Amino acid sequence: QIDSARLWDSIHETARFGATPKGGVRRLTLSQEDKQVRDWFRKACEDAGLEVHVDTLGSMFGLRKGRDMSKLPVGLGSHLDTQPTGGKFDGILGTLGALEVIRTLNDAGVETDAPLCIVNWTNEEGSRFAPAMMASAAYVGDFTVEDILSRKDAEGTTVGAALDGIGYRGATKVGTQKFSGFVELHIEQGPILEAESKTIGVVDHGQGVFWYDGKVTGFESHAGSTPMPLRRDALLALSEFALTLEQIALKLGPNAVATIGEAVIANPSRNVIPGEIAFTIDCRSANADTLEALDASLRAAAGEIAKKRRVEIAIDQVWRKPPTHFDPKLVDAVERAAGTLGYSHRRITSGAGHDACNLNTIMPAAMVFVPCKDGISHNELEDATQSDCAAGANVLLHTVLSLAGV
Amino acid sequence: QIDSARLWDSIHETARFGATPKGGVRRLTLSQEDKQVRDWFRKACEDAGLEVHVDTLGSMFGLRKGRDMSKLPVGLGSHLDTQPTGGKFDGILGTLGALEVIRTLNDAGVETDAPLCIVNWTNEEGSRFAPAMMASAAYVGDFTVEDILSRKDAEGTTVGAALDGIGYRGATKVGTQKFSGFVELHIEQGPILEAESKTIGVVDHGQGVFWYDGKVTGFESHAGSTPMPLRRDALLALSEFALTLEQIALKLGPNAVATIGEAVIANPSRNVIPGEIAFTIDCRSANADTLEALDASLRAAAGEIAKKRRVEIAIDQVWRKPPTHFDPKLVDAVERAAGTLGYSHRRITSGAGHDACNLNTIMPAAMVFVPCKDGISHNELEDATQSDCAAGANVLLHTVLSLAGV
Ligand SMILES: NC(=O)NCCC(=O)O
Ligand SMILES: NC(=O)NCCC(=O)O
Repeated sequence: QIDSARLWDSIHETARFGATPKGGVRRLTLSQEDKQVRDWFRKACEDAGLEVHVDTLGSMFGLRKGRDMSKLPVGLGSHLDTQPTGGKFDGILGTLGALEVIRTLNDAGVETDAPLCIVNWTNEEGSRFAPAMMASAAYVGDFTVEDILSRKDAEGTTVGAALDGIGYRGATKVGTQKFSGFVELHIEQGPILEAESKTIGVVDHGQGVFWYDGKVTGFESHAGSTPMPLRRDALLALSEFALTLEQIALKLGPNAVATIGEAVIANPSRNVIPGEIAFTIDCRSANADTLEALDASLRAAAGEIAKKRRVEIAIDQVWRKPPTHFDPKLVDAVERAAGTLGYSHRRITSGAGHDACNLNTIMPAAMVFVPCKDGISHNELEDATQSDCAAGANVLLHTVLSLAGV
Repeated sequence: QIDSARLWDSIHETARFGATPKGGVRRLTLSQEDKQVRDWFRKACEDAGLEVHVDTLGSMFGLRKGRDMSKLPVGLGSHLDTQPTGGKFDGILGTLGALEVIRTLNDAGVETDAPLCIVNWTNEEGSRFAPAMMASAAYVGDFTVEDILSRKDAEGTTVGAALDGIGYRGATKVGTQKFSGFVELHIEQGPILEAESKTIGVVDHGQGVFWYDGKVTGFESHAGSTPMPLRRDALLALSEFALTLEQIALKLGPNAVATIGEAVIANPSRNVIPGEIAFTIDCRSANADTLEALDASLRAAAGEIAKKRRVEIAIDQVWRKPPTHFDPKLVDAVERAAGTLGYSHRRITSGAGHDACNLNTIMPAAMVFVPCKDGISHNELEDATQSDCAAGANVLLHTVLSLAGV
């Protein structure tokens, strides 16, 4: 059994770094706040006797020796970056839960057969730099490291410059820290476990994600002297597209979602009809065919609206992450651990993307979910109970022990 | 007859200050570029023998003595500020046209009976600070000077600080430079004169304007794990409102327009459902009842959409400018001047707001329009011909002479 109070204290101790007035956290990846929590995490790892190294994309690895050093370590962890208006649990529970597993084993003097390696992955959120789960995507070879290092945030700062800015461009070549498997603990970020009063979600699937950069090009003109029928208003075109996209997702059933999260009018002015808007689209489904149907429908809708409103709508797919089918044996191991510990549990599909989804493409991976209040995440009001967090960390502990061997 | 080439040269000489790559001008009020054009204008006035003074809101006055100094001067002019992506003619033609009138009278050695006073009004565009026609509104008493000085731009800079920043907070008390009447030359900013091949628009009416600040408050949540029906998406609510507003304006007929020019998502992120959006509305009509109908309909629409989508939509009216009925005698004087000079002309309603609309509330005012290419304005592609500009300046000259007496 892990130390519930110690885990809870660590979560709240790190929530200082980027704390917002509304009780949330703003800790964009590779920001000064991210540096603060990274420094804290490095020290906590070292204090727990781990050997820490950092890869060239800033992901942090803390290695605990095993009895048999010829075996690959079992990986566990998550991320410490947050959304601009994020919460205290998303990613943090999984990273500090992994640290708590190590601390618990240390206290109990337990040596595992295989080594263990806890991880803090860089830029899981994808808010400052696209794509999300960036460093784990490069780790599994979905993107080259050079490509990722050149990605830019809204201010034009590259990932490379941001890494140097906080001193976290490490020496380890990306992908060289191997694992026999990876287990990630996380809050559900959805309403199902809470609604069904289950403590543990045994995650067997993850939604696929398509991300797009879009641009509407209309024509700027005078808000007072341009008659309504002559306008080529970029905002009205985007409005029609946004509502059509909502209808498309609704029609594809409960297993599809689509979101326009960003939309920026170029050179906005109260008395100028918007002439250009850059926007983003996020589409998800656990079903690959549904995702392709979403893609086809949204492109068709963009074409029709562009024609009707005499504007251009460019749609550029910038990220494709197919649906995840987590490793059946590892999923079983999570389920067994939850059962042995006596927690109520159910199989569940992850609505969000996770580093474990990337890792699952090259090694066995699995996830443990715990409920969060009202299913709210990516919001400063995100919340979870101490006992659910502790339950999740216990399932993580027992799953990892079953994989590493005692 | 004014000097067509000299007027054309002045327009192009000042277009350097804030020139954009696409051939337009970005010269936000009280910016460094505005200071440059103001300095140029002050020197040009002094070179033309005018006595220049500046009021406490930065409006610039250049006085030319008349034979009878007991008479109030005739005012003429416009503004030198532009939209973020504005053109070379909007406001500039009227200000430099007024300067050209003075230069022409100087060259011909003509002394008028009443004095003349050319004006560059501060912040006509209303893009950096609301409302538009800001300084002339304070001049006629629609707002107090203290209120206007405290207005803030998007960065939080006040009008007062911006005036001090470029050294244009003058000594003249706002409203103390009196006029017997005011004539403003301007490009039409609409398509009518060009379509009907008329050289001069004799402006008899101006549309009224209502401006609003709006805010949609929904709820931020995760783009992947929040089912479509549970969302309280601020962008979807705004989209529905924008399309409804378009329908409202279309239904009220050709005599109504409505525009959302600015919309800013708070803390945007690709994978976060927008929780808050600030936006602006601009509504216009030449008919006061139509404007009130627009106001009532848009408020009702906001209420319905807010209820349906479980968001809040706040609508705050920040500016009310009733429709303008220009002084019939002065309108006749413009028409006579156009006729005498042999230019084709027609009566016309201004779609845009102008400083002359404000001045008309306390003195006789009138306007002269010339065609602009494709009716395009508030766009870097804004264009007008040299001969139309010269024709407008000639009508301005003859109207002013008829008012001031020779
Ligand atoms: N878990 C999580 O919120 N990840 C962020 C990436 C995404 O799913 O949008
Ligand atoms: N003439 C002009 O474009 N004025 C700006 C104020 C407005 O009408 O929006």
